Amino acid sequence: MNLQEVEQLLQAYKSGELGVADAARRIGDLSYEDIGHTRVDHARASRQGFPEVVFGEGKTRTQIVEIVVRLIARAPNVLVTRTDEATFGEVRNVVTDAEWHKAARLIRIRRDTTERGAGEIIIVTAGTSDIPIAEEAALTAETMGNRVSRVWDAGVAGIHRVLAERERLRAARVIVVVAGMEGALPSVVGGLVSVPVIAVPTSIGYGASFGGVAALLGMLNSCASNVTVVNIDNGFGAGFVASLINRNAAQ
Amino acid sequence: MNLQEVEQLLQAYKSGELGVADAARRIGDLSYEDIGHTRVDHARASRQGFPEVVFGEGKTRTQIVEIVVRLIARAPNVLVTRTDEATFGEVRNVVTDAEWHKAARLIRIRRDTTERGAGEIIIVTAGTSDIPIAEEAALTAETMGNRVSRVWDAGVAGIHRVLAERERLRAARVIVVVAGMEGALPSVVGGLVSVPVIAVPTSIGYGASFGGVAALLGMLNSCASNVTVVNIDNGFGAGFVASLINRNAAQ
Amino acid sequence: MNLQEVEQLLQAYKSGELGVADAARRIGDLSYEDIGHTRVDHARASRQGFPEVVFGEGKTRTQIVEIVVRLIARAPNVLVTRTDEATFGEVRNVVTDAEWHKAARLIRIRRDTTERGAGEIIIVTAGTSDIPIAEEAALTAETMGNRVSRVWDAGVAGIHRVLAERERLRAARVIVVVAGMEGALPSVVGGLVSVPVIAVPTSIGYGASFGGVAALLGMLNSCASNVTVVNIDNGFGAGFVASLINRNAAQ
Amino acid sequence: MNLQEVEQLLQAYKSGELGVADAARRIGDLSYEDIGHTRVDHARASRQGFPEVVFGEGKTRTQIVEIVVRLIARAPNVLVTRTDEATFGEVRNVVTDAEWHKAARLIRIRRDTTERGAGEIIIVTAGTSDIPIAEEAALTAETMGNRVSRVWDAGVAGIHRVLAERERLRAARVIVVVAGMEGALPSVVGGLVSVPVIAVPTSIGYGASFGGVAALLGMLNSCASNVTVVNIDNGFGAGFVASLINRNAAQ
Amino acid sequence: MNLQEVEQLLQAYKSGELGVADAARRIGDLSYEDIGHTRVDHARASRQGFPEVVFGEGKTRTQIVEIVVRLIARAPNVLVTRTDEATFGEVRNVVTDAEWHKAARLIRIRRDTTERGAGEIIIVTAGTSDIPIAEEAALTAETMGNRVSRVWDAGVAGIHRVLAERERLRAARVIVVVAGMEGALPSVVGGLVSVPVIAVPTSIGYGASFGGVAALLGMLNSCASNVTVVNIDNGFGAGFVASLINRNAAQ
Amino acid sequence: MNLQEVEQLLQAYKSGELGVADAARRIGDLSYEDIGHTRVDHARASRQGFPEVVFGEGKTRTQIVEIVVRLIARAPNVLVTRTDEATFGEVRNVVTDAEWHKAARLIRIRRDTTERGAGEIIIVTAGTSDIPIAEEAALTAETMGNRVSRVWDAGVAGIHRVLAERERLRAARVIVVVAGMEGALPSVVGGLVSVPVIAVPTSIGYGASFGGVAALLGMLNSCASNVTVVNIDNGFGAGFVASLINRNAAQ
Amino acid sequence: MNLQEVEQLLQAYKSGELGVADAARRIGDLSYEDIGHTRVDHARASRQGFPEVVFGEGKTRTQIVEIVVRLIARAPNVLVTRTDEATFGEVRNVVTDAEWHKAARLIRIRRDTTERGAGEIIIVTAGTSDIPIAEEAALTAETMGNRVSRVWDAGVAGIHRVLAERERLRAARVIVVVAGMEGALPSVVGGLVSVPVIAVPTSIGYGASFGGVAALLGMLNSCASNVTVVNIDNGFGAGFVASLINRNAAQ
Amino acid sequence: MNLQEVEQLLQAYKSGELGVADAARRIGDLSYEDIGHTRVDHARASRQGFPEVVFGEGKTRTQIVEIVVRLIARAPNVLVTRTDEATFGEVRNVVTDAEWHKAARLIRIRRDTTERGAGEIIIVTAGTSDIPIAEEAALTAETMGNRVSRVWDAGVAGIHRVLAERERLRAARVIVVVAGMEGALPSVVGGLVSVPVIAVPTSIGYGASFGGVAALLGMLNSCASNVTVVNIDNGFGAGFVASLINRNAAQ
Repeated sequence: MNLQEVEQLLQAYKSGELGVADAARRIGDLSYEDIGHTRVDHARASRQGFPEVVFGEGKTRTQIVEIVVRLIARAPNVLVTRTDEATFGEVRNVVTDAEWHKAARLIRIRRDTTERGAGEIIIVTAGTSDIPIAEEAALTAETMGNRVSRVWDAGVAGIHRVLAERERLRAARVIVVVAGMEGALPSVVGGLVSVPVIAVPTSIGYGASFGGVAALLGMLNSCASNVTVVNIDNGFGAGFVASLINRNAAQ
Repeated sequence: MNLQEVEQLLQAYKSGELGVADAARRIGDLSYEDIGHTRVDHARASRQGFPEVVFGEGKTRTQIVEIVVRLIARAPNVLVTRTDEATFGEVRNVVTDAEWHKAARLIRIRRDTTERGAGEIIIVTAGTSDIPIAEEAALTAETMGNRVSRVWDAGVAGIHRVLAERERLRAARVIVVVAGMEGALPSVVGGLVSVPVIAVPTSIGYGASFGGVAALLGMLNSCASNVTVVNIDNGFGAGFVASLINRNAAQ
Repeated sequence: MNLQEVEQLLQAYKSGELGVADAARRIGDLSYEDIGHTRVDHARASRQGFPEVVFGEGKTRTQIVEIVVRLIARAPNVLVTRTDEATFGEVRNVVTDAEWHKAARLIRIRRDTTERGAGEIIIVTAGTSDIPIAEEAALTAETMGNRVSRVWDAGVAGIHRVLAERERLRAARVIVVVAGMEGALPSVVGGLVSVPVIAVPTSIGYGASFGGVAALLGMLNSCASNVTVVNIDNGFGAGFVASLINRNAAQ
Repeated sequence: MNLQEVEQLLQAYKSGELGVADAARRIGDLSYEDIGHTRVDHARASRQGFPEVVFGEGKTRTQIVEIVVRLIARAPNVLVTRTDEATFGEVRNVVTDAEWHKAARLIRIRRDTTERGAGEIIIVTAGTSDIPIAEEAALTAETMGNRVSRVWDAGVAGIHRVLAERERLRAARVIVVVAGMEGALPSVVGGLVSVPVIAVPTSIGYGASFGGVAALLGMLNSCASNVTVVNIDNGFGAGFVASLINRNAAQ
Repeated sequence: MNLQEVEQLLQAYKSGELGVADAARRIGDLSYEDIGHTRVDHARASRQGFPEVVFGEGKTRTQIVEIVVRLIARAPNVLVTRTDEATFGEVRNVVTDAEWHKAARLIRIRRDTTERGAGEIIIVTAGTSDIPIAEEAALTAETMGNRVSRVWDAGVAGIHRVLAERERLRAARVIVVVAGMEGALPSVVGGLVSVPVIAVPTSIGYGASFGGVAALLGMLNSCASNVTVVNIDNGFGAGFVASLINRNAAQ
Repeated sequence: MNLQEVEQLLQAYKSGELGVADAARRIGDLSYEDIGHTRVDHARASRQGFPEVVFGEGKTRTQIVEIVVRLIARAPNVLVTRTDEATFGEVRNVVTDAEWHKAARLIRIRRDTTERGAGEIIIVTAGTSDIPIAEEAALTAETMGNRVSRVWDAGVAGIHRVLAERERLRAARVIVVVAGMEGALPSVVGGLVSVPVIAVPTSIGYGASFGGVAALLGMLNSCASNVTVVNIDNGFGAGFVASLINRNAAQ
Repeated sequence: MNLQEVEQLLQAYKSGELGVADAARRIGDLSYEDIGHTRVDHARASRQGFPEVVFGEGKTRTQIVEIVVRLIARAPNVLVTRTDEATFGEVRNVVTDAEWHKAARLIRIRRDTTERGAGEIIIVTAGTSDIPIAEEAALTAETMGNRVSRVWDAGVAGIHRVLAERERLRAARVIVVVAGMEGALPSVVGGLVSVPVIAVPTSIGYGASFGGVAALLGMLNSCASNVTVVNIDNGFGAGFVASLINRNAAQ
Repeated sequence: MNLQEVEQLLQAYKSGELGVADAARRIGDLSYEDIGHTRVDHARASRQGFPEVVFGEGKTRTQIVEIVVRLIARAPNVLVTRTDEATFGEVRNVVTDAEWHKAARLIRIRRDTTERGAGEIIIVTAGTSDIPIAEEAALTAETMGNRVSRVWDAGVAGIHRVLAERERLRAARVIVVVAGMEGALPSVVGGLVSVPVIAVPTSIGYGASFGGVAALLGMLNSCASNVTVVNIDNGFGAGFVASLINRNAAQ
């Protein structure tokens, strides 16, 4: 929400130029736009430093296109996560510079490429199968103006693979670790560095991994004190918070 | 681990002054000290920016005193969490400037009070019963050199209580939100600000709260993108990560 | 069950006009009709104020058509929930004024449109994806003779969206809140109003939402005292109870 | 919150008599009082029709006494739930008309005994062991101005015990059913009546009852459409919502 | 296992006619036949009063046909549960009197129709959707030589439907109750009769029924003392045990 | 309920000797007695072949004594399960022939020792620690007029211990198997015999036994078709159903 | 990792022939090869006695082929588990001696058939449906140089089937037992022998088997002390550890 | 069971010297001794290489003493696990060379100290709090004739602590890893060595560790292929299997 516009409205109300009902409605308009099925939240950029990201699951293609059109009218960068190629087709019909990222199942429009982060964000995966979630995190962080490095397939059963990256990891501002199965990698990485580590459990695994619950519990119980956790397969969330931390550093 | 000491040892090894076994042992000594039951980890300060914190649960009083003595010999500040007043008594017998924090059940020795954080850390609780965990977070962050503000009892069922603190929250560098029961407060706070929010579920609640699981799940599934989560009742972890984020900002 | 008919049967029995077996059977006939696979429960209208609603899941199309035919012969309004368009086709072949509601996956026959509620029922959703369940609640309440308002996509991460509806919410007689993910919205709405709030957890979410369990637990542990809960995705149940509460008000 | 006081403050602000900061603070004061550990919520009566109830668990005796003193200064009736006799002793020292209800472990101050409900609330238990939770519900509803009837020990394994109460149940405005073990009673009661039934699972049971989870699941999955559920052992919540429903009826 | 054949083998061994290895093998042959993937258990008839039933899930069509052929060579009646119509086609190619029971997804060969039970077995369902599992129980009990009655759709939310069958239920020797959702019907039936009740939870339900877990827990925690439970959807097991109980009665 | 008394009441009603209200009340009196906290169920003997058993947990000593006094006034045998020695003392003050069974934590009054069962009931335990639950089953069955044999400590890890009892087991009418840990014994016993096996999981075990859940799941998933299951530690229920099965056999 | 190559590199570093960075990189190269999506771990043979096995699930066909090509270039034997026939087709295009094992869904390349084990490994299944998992174990152990025997369909409900194999089982060095449903077979086998038993729970079962959880819990709680457990359906892991145990025996 | 004694009995039976009943009983006597509450299993030494270990939990002191007396009469070494010092006092009254091991809560009688293992068993703990369980494993393995090394407090958050022990670990025949919290250490150790690793989850941890479930799941899902798992806190089982593996090596 543009605070100057709000102040003008408040002054108009105090001076009697606007009645209370009108003032309320117009302030409300500034912060979101009601398009029936969805309240498009234009205020989020001011509140969280980024336009609303569209979570694609559970929405129809038409709804997604409508929301993207509203968002891109006011913001330079938009992400649609958890979507499919057919939806991308419909989005590109109306927003021709939209890109499709297959592994991450993500639509991106990126018109502002200013670098905003002070340091580097490193994304690490335990295995090859964790890459799609890790890419969601990496693309989110890049779109939010950060330098991002990828370290794929560095799981703990071959500990020398992650130890080999020790120096690189220590140079990061913040690290995202993506792992399924037992979810042990964030603990090991956390013990090697002195920056925040964001752990993303994935639903990769079999048997008693219970769709990522084993990894989630492992990460929540990490004996490394610098680890926090996001939801199973929530690559977007990890990339988002990593960006906020890195941006802090820049200010 | 002091890197200069390590380099000297490496040169002594290369020049033949030290055999391989001797070199290895002396490098090892630099990083931890084996006192039988425990490997006291002096290297952690260099790796994580803080001396090892002693997790009191499951350790005998004698073990805790021994560990504290070794740590304080090399580091200015030490914390013992999840402990009791009797243990504090024994610690104070040998470390006279140790303090006892009753609500948080925490022993603190704080000889270095340099401020290291760039901004302010705010700790918020949903209810009165969440205060002990929140105090653990607050004391941890203060001991690590941060300015800390406390906002107690601002749960969502009386939403005006948290809205009243909106401006203050928006001025923070990082926010820790401590909540039991349904764990909804981090989502609301997360939606109000554009900085990282660390959510701490507490075991406060009854019936189907299952010792904090309801709050934990609520926080992991938060619809606010800037929320990450630590383990149930893990106030220390939240204060620790908040400090790392705030310190980043200062560098 | 028509109580006058029952009384007549009882008098016929006492006078000896009917033997005990005959009397029992005929009273039984009044209350349900056995059509082999199903006991069609005509008595439910007298017991619960509404004809039996047909829960479509797990029934064959033929069974559903047979049940609808029996019910509509004695009652003006009938609902079939959790069904599909092909079943609707077969129902309309024999009941030509049946309507198909796609989002809610619901067949409705509505011949009696008398308004019975004293106040307004408001249905609120946290997100766009919760709308199908919310529509099931709304259609149920409308069919039972209530005025219904819809407030879509007012989740807690943008708290101003629900605060903007505060006055409207306070004017309702009863509110149904439909939410997935962390299920926090009923707590916030509950804190804003002084009427009963019926919370419907939805299976919308991902990762550790466990098909609605996270939302369900959040709602059961709500710190707002005026919240009760129905089963996951049970929009029908919520609309039904809301109608009973609103009807009470009218008597 | 007294709306007239708020309007006066708003007019004072518009006229310039009060600056924006002052106006905000004074409106805030009207709605809650910050006493350090707790924000006492005087506004709740206007929002929910009843003063804040003090949930005793997890609060110290001193905290409870301080909160009660603040609340009773502005409201005629106060409840403290989940507390003990020693706390009651301290409360009575300062509030001499406080009463102790042993079975329900509840402190009550009741100065306003106006009847507000239009009909009768019936509380039913499945077994003798469920009585303490049922009493919490009954006392809450009575304190909120309702006529309350108690039907104890009417579980489904002797179905004639609940059938014997059929007529009485049908005369109620709203029914609360308290049951442990398999939690089947709300379904049976729900099928007998046409008013809302609020189900309270209790932690009574053994083996695979899992502290009330079996009863909770049974109630959530009830095949009776007029049943909603509150948390395990949450007698207070059930009595509270029953009062709101009954009050609606009276308006 | 034919005990006379075993005795003859033992005497042959004692007299020296058979060496120890030969004797062991031939006794083994009597009890099962190893056909590579499966040890066909001909001894089960003597141990349990019925030939081995083939559980179809997880076996290939060829394996099922091979097992059926071996079993029918020595036993008059064979059942294949959890199978499909295509498998039935292949079985009928070689066993022409095999029957297909669609609702129960069951193949039956029934050459011996002697009645063996002393009383009647009644199978009750709570709803229409529980019929497939109930049919599996009914067909099993009939094939084992019992008179079976079916009472469909008598769930507790319309308690008069089950009360109407009270006399019939009291005349049974053993009752099987099949129910999904909250699983309350066995408790009510159990309270009405003085014979054993076997409860079969079904996976029918939605939301927090968790594939039959809610019904299973309800039945395990039944307050009626004459209820025992079998696995979710295990109609076969219930029919089998009911037959053993009824047969006991006949001996 | 004595059916002759009921018939007399019904005739009195039909003849006009009794009004409808009086008739209902007196029929009700026959079936249970309301003593405030409890509805003592005298009808259960006619419905289930045994007087109501008092489940001691969650009842006060005074309540138990009052219930026992009412029951013993009309029935020769009474059991109180899950109680303690102090309660026994109070019961014996008023019912001098009450007995205390320490291992089973059970009070028994046994004035009628008629043998009613046709065959023998065998109770088997897997381990020494399962004996208390097994004794509850054995005492229940004995009190209900059955011959009972005990086979203690015959778990599957030393399979020869249970095989040694094979002949004895095969001579039983019904078998109760009590086991904790992995709960495998009922499957093995079930495979050896052709009578019903009632499995009782116990809460004996450690680690991932989860208070009997591992044993419960093992028993529900038994590959022996003649096994049904009761609740964890429910020795009483197992003894009760075993008695009903054995009694059937005798009729 | 070839230790001689490593020693040569270390000497080259000490002599100054190699700088520290070069030395580190070349040692790293010896231990794994980074091909973008995957770090192929050639060092595993030296660390664990076997080349890296490729877990097929979650990898694309192209990734699998690339990994196999790298591995087979340095190792004589390679396994790909959890894969499908189409992937096998692509692997065989480039590695013509690859074999497809349908039941176990496994690709094998086996160029070194040296026998390395000292004794025999026996694989036992409880049922016919467990064979695919058991074959994965058997093929793994054979590929690692062991003699393997298969005992299929020997579940506990027909205990004579496993007792008949007693002598054969006692002659093994190590036994793998594969079982679904209640998972009782490892306890029985464990009680018969004095060698290690590795238990593999399978997801075979229905109802409350919860995808193998019932079997897993049964095995973890085994009363036989010589049983250890691997993940649900993890035939590969069981065959791998059995090989390590048997190889130990040979050294 | 002494096989020579069994052969003599069999010959006596074949020659007619012993009747079938006598022969059976005397063979049975050889294998266990029935002392009422317990069947003391003297045959276990021949079956498993070690006398029956007494699991103390759930047994009375008198029972434990009786069992120990029977066992020590025929075997040189006996262990009682999960017991207390008072029980030890009673055991020592009759077996004067019994030892008490406080940390492990274990009574040991050790008269035979022959070394039977071929290599060394190493026991590793992640933290100081895991030592009691690890000691149970170590004492079990020592009593069974093995050389045992202890490596305490080597958790993954300070990965250099376990890397420092790499050479020592690689020299072991079998490794037991004891860890609570996230249970990641077995994966790291498993990746460093080529011998079997037995993982023991402990109930050490807090919050969402759920009494060891987090560690258990982490270990079951280990990405290291040489890891098998025993029950939570089952140090005895781990020490037992490690001994069997090491003994194999020696033969």
